[in-house]
Amino acid sequence: MDTLVLALDFVGTFVFALSGAMLGVRRRLDLFGVLVVAFAAATAGGMTRDVLIGATPVAVLSDWRYPAITLAAGLIAFAWAPAIERLQQPVRLFDAMGLALFAVVGTQKALDFGIPPPMAAGLGMLTGIGGGIARDVLLAQVPLVLRAELYAVAALAGAALVATGHWLHWPPLPCAIGGALLCFGLRMMALRFGWHLPVALQSRDGEPPESMR
Amino acid sequence: MDTLVLALDFVGTFVFALSGAMLGVRRRLDLFGVLVVAFAAATAGGMTRDVLIGATPVAVLSDWRYPAITLAAGLIAFAWAPAIERLQQPVRLFDAMGLALFAVVGTQKALDFGIPPPMAAGLGMLTGIGGGIARDVLLAQVPLVLRAELYAVAALAGAALVATGHWLHWPPLPCAIGGALLCFGLRMMALRFGWHLPVALQSRDGEPPESMR
Amino acid sequence: MDTLVLALDFVGTFVFALSGAMLGVRRRLDLFGVLVVAFAAATAGGMTRDVLIGATPVAVLSDWRYPAITLAAGLIAFAWAPAIERLQQPVRLFDAMGLALFAVVGTQKALDFGIPPPMAAGLGMLTGIGGGIARDVLLAQVPLVLRAELYAVAALAGAALVATGHWLHWPPLPCAIGGALLCFGLRMMALRFGWHLPVALQSRDGEPPESMR
Repeated sequence: MDTLVLALDFVGTFVFALSGAMLGVRRRLDLFGVLVVAFAAATAGGMTRDVLIGATPVAVLSDWRYPAITLAAGLIAFAWAPAIERLQQPVRLFDAMGLALFAVVGTQKALDFGIPPPMAAGLGMLTGIGGGIARDVLLAQVPLVLRAELYAVAALAGAALVATGHWLHWPPLPCAIGGALLCFGLRMMALRFGWHLPVALQSRDGEPPESMR
Repeated sequence: MDTLVLALDFVGTFVFALSGAMLGVRRRLDLFGVLVVAFAAATAGGMTRDVLIGATPVAVLSDWRYPAITLAAGLIAFAWAPAIERLQQPVRLFDAMGLALFAVVGTQKALDFGIPPPMAAGLGMLTGIGGGIARDVLLAQVPLVLRAELYAVAALAGAALVATGHWLHWPPLPCAIGGALLCFGLRMMALRFGWHLPVALQSRDGEPPESMR
Repeated sequence: MDTLVLALDFVGTFVFALSGAMLGVRRRLDLFGVLVVAFAAATAGGMTRDVLIGATPVAVLSDWRYPAITLAAGLIAFAWAPAIERLQQPVRLFDAMGLALFAVVGTQKALDFGIPPPMAAGLGMLTGIGGGIARDVLLAQVPLVLRAELYAVAALAGAALVATGHWLHWPPLPCAIGGALLCFGLRMMALRFGWHLPVALQSRDGEPPESMR
């Protein structure tokens, strides 16, 4: 089981690194800039979670395979960027798998550190979406995960199932599998059917209101 | 007294969450993106302070009322955004109160962790302005708190009074009240009279100078 | 020796603070905003490193000279911005020195905390380039260190030499000096001869591909 989780964790790291590297290529960063963004996209979520719960040194610093995988993903994206862009369907699939896995693993780790279930679910979501946020902040754009089809919602749903199961003393393995499937399924269905959350009404566009400064 | 501080802390959390949610609404994020930005605006300052001084797991992860308040503020902003924009005066008032309180509480917590007074004052300021910085970085704009009327200065003034009082062994309660009033008063007066700090002279506009890269 | 390292660390802090302040001046921040960006540019790399390895409270919070140096650099940049822009050559020189030193010191500190050599080298690089990233994220632009002439590469090369030396049980002092010289030399030569890393081929410009969301 642990080997499976580790393997899936590596897949998630690889796919998120790929997404960061592809965006870096698009924004015309040089090879090294691409690798830095790939690393941020793959590891920022887990690192932020570890820092917030006090699990330092953070996990990604103690296993050389994470940087190695990130490096490989970055080099692949750099070398074959046009080809990868054509593979939309598989990349989306892997990305949803990575999101599901990171959300579930992140929640479980937070619970193991004694964080109460509601906040553990939030940390699980953060583990899933943090990499995408770091990638977009580095590239000076509003994070796509805050706007894409049920991206953060799917992560939170999966994380919440794990946290609820922990709270009700359900066995952890089925909860983890169920949470991952819930997240993955929600995200894939949102992509397929174009599901979006509503956007609020507002009075006028442009600058934020004076009172919010 | 502790109950009062906690109640004011909740008010500050609520108001800062509101400011984040309002900005998210303006930038056309969906419901969930709005909630994420609200949470970042309300808690990033305190989380950064806790992480830097090693107070992990960070405080906001151990009390479910912070996420609950943030959620409520986000939903309210989402549902009634146009109405809230018209309430400039009350929102400014609460925002200044939140700033004053966060600055004072943040300084006190840093002092309790043995941080020397000058840096504790800096951390207090960071507690007050960190949420606004996180909110604006997420939305890819230069933080307004770095440009608004004496915003960061007011936070630092209040925090410095608390830190100075601690250094001179003055009683903590009057210092805290004085610091909060100083911050609140400075900010309200700066808003009323349009006080600004000076902007530096420069030779030409546009890109940063070559030598700074 | 320790005095020398400390003195060089102060020089690096001063120069990075200067670079942050100059950029803040260009973006028309007020005096206080300039000081905040100067502080972020000078200390974000070291603070991030300390937080990730669990060395909290972070080092910069326990020595008042760091804020004092940052403050001085910020005020100088604010007062004489046009003059400093003309000093391109010396500023570049100091900046490369700061980068070299931060990279070497950062790697050494990570190794002292038991981080394995490959990740310690990465943390050393992060110590060197983190300040520049924080500065540019605060000012909502894609970090220049991800695009400039071998900037991050030079930092990583110096850091890698220190980490390799540690792994092979070489004496630390010559490794540190060699790593700093390597980083400094690479950066200065890249500036002199305009060295760049390659940029990847891509199929079309504009928005990131759909599949990356």
